[in-house]
Amino acid sequence: MITEKCLAKGSAPPGPVPKGHIRLFSMRFCPFAQRARLVLNVKGIKHEIINIHLKEKPDWFLEKNPLGLVPTLETEAGEVVSESSITCDYLDEVYPQKKLLPSTPFGKAQQKMMLEHFSKVTPYFYKITLAKKDGEDISGPVIELEEKFVRMDKDLVKKKTKFFGGDSITMIDYMMWPWFERLEAFDLKHLLDSTPELKKWYISMWEDPAVKVSSSSTENHKAFLKSAFIDGKPDYDFGL
Amino acid sequence: MITEKCLAKGSAPPGPVPKGHIRLFSMRFCPFAQRARLVLNVKGIKHEIINIHLKEKPDWFLEKNPLGLVPTLETEAGEVVSESSITCDYLDEVYPQKKLLPSTPFGKAQQKMMLEHFSKVTPYFYKITLAKKDGEDISGPVIELEEKFVRMDKDLVKKKTKFFGGDSITMIDYMMWPWFERLEAFDLKHLLDSTPELKKWYISMWEDPAVKVSSSSTENHKAFLKSAFIDGKPDYDFGL
Repeated sequence: MITEKCLAKGSAPPGPVPKGHIRLFSMRFCPFAQRARLVLNVKGIKHEIINIHLKEKPDWFLEKNPLGLVPTLETEAGEVVSESSITCDYLDEVYPQKKLLPSTPFGKAQQKMMLEHFSKVTPYFYKITLAKKDGEDISGPVIELEEKFVRMDKDLVKKKTKFFGGDSITMIDYMMWPWFERLEAFDLKHLLDSTPELKKWYISMWEDPAVKVSSSSTENHKAFLKSAFIDGKPDYDFGL
Repeated sequence: MITEKCLAKGSAPPGPVPKGHIRLFSMRFCPFAQRARLVLNVKGIKHEIINIHLKEKPDWFLEKNPLGLVPTLETEAGEVVSESSITCDYLDEVYPQKKLLPSTPFGKAQQKMMLEHFSKVTPYFYKITLAKKDGEDISGPVIELEEKFVRMDKDLVKKKTKFFGGDSITMIDYMMWPWFERLEAFDLKHLLDSTPELKKWYISMWEDPAVKVSSSSTENHKAFLKSAFIDGKPDYDFGL
């Protein structure tokens, strides 16, 4: 992984996408961008990463993607693809090695339904963090998040598989992983104590090489979360 | 289209999915369920429709889909698929006739990005309706919705195509259609006066046979919207 400092407004635009590579506009601590980094890594796709200052976005970046979101992919042909799950599906389809999505329509639909359900889980991490910052009672949202974890745990029990799409890692595991990597940084790791199958999944995921190479330390996640949510000044280059 | 009265809590569960058919759990006025009905119609897929009382959902329906959402598909094999765009992609993949999604990864990604953008458009219809009901000033959200329409109009101008995915109707057009069908019922049709290309699209869409067969009259939409948003008692069977 290239861990270059982020480019902000006023920076020089990057040159053409290097031959034989795909470019990813990312932010080192963004869990959505990490989804794309996981897929790039696990599939062994040659790529270049350009980190973006999300509070002061370069004009040349907004020209490529008016929504200014990361992750955004740029191909040699100048095609631009954004939104995390769209970038991941695109990569899985264009690069046939190590297919991460099932080949059957129903298998794909199942993964998309799990992802849709998980999209209702991620907001809790931020809700809890912001409530804590404001000195509010966090027990309500923590219980709700725990219920979501219990549902995921039950899903694994019912499926009798190690991962959410079977006994090997598939797309849905990588889509959910970035928030689990940050569990300790969010002070929420204890939730896994009441969800033994989900805890086993969590431990197995840490053993995956693509997970390892795309990960940041809990210390770095903590520092970034503090800068973004407590200090209100995200330190995109923390640790560089 | 079968327009049976909706089934509520306490109703008898339906029998097996009829041979050679797929079953759709729907609600006659739900724009999300209409997406699936459009795809079923345009592809000529043999189907059975069961309408669900969304305020008093039958237990047997919640057993099939604990989230209790429409649209939900049920196959002869007992597979259950829900979430509107997931059901539509599933149908397009399983039934090869009249492919609605492009075959290239980038073409698919473009449709998904348009859909993602459109998901930020639909909430305005309800925001405006509820604000109006509460006697609030609606000019703010109306201007914001108009800006979204202008962006869509510019997209068509830039593409120089009749529809959003080319010169014939593709998936993305059907995904956006249900809210445009209701424009007049929402008292928002005048917005098209400042977006001539989008207005042409709107007129062309009305000519599509699948659009015609899945549509409800403005009068019926109005009556349903009134029952749901003004009276707070959705009349799922209005007009039957």
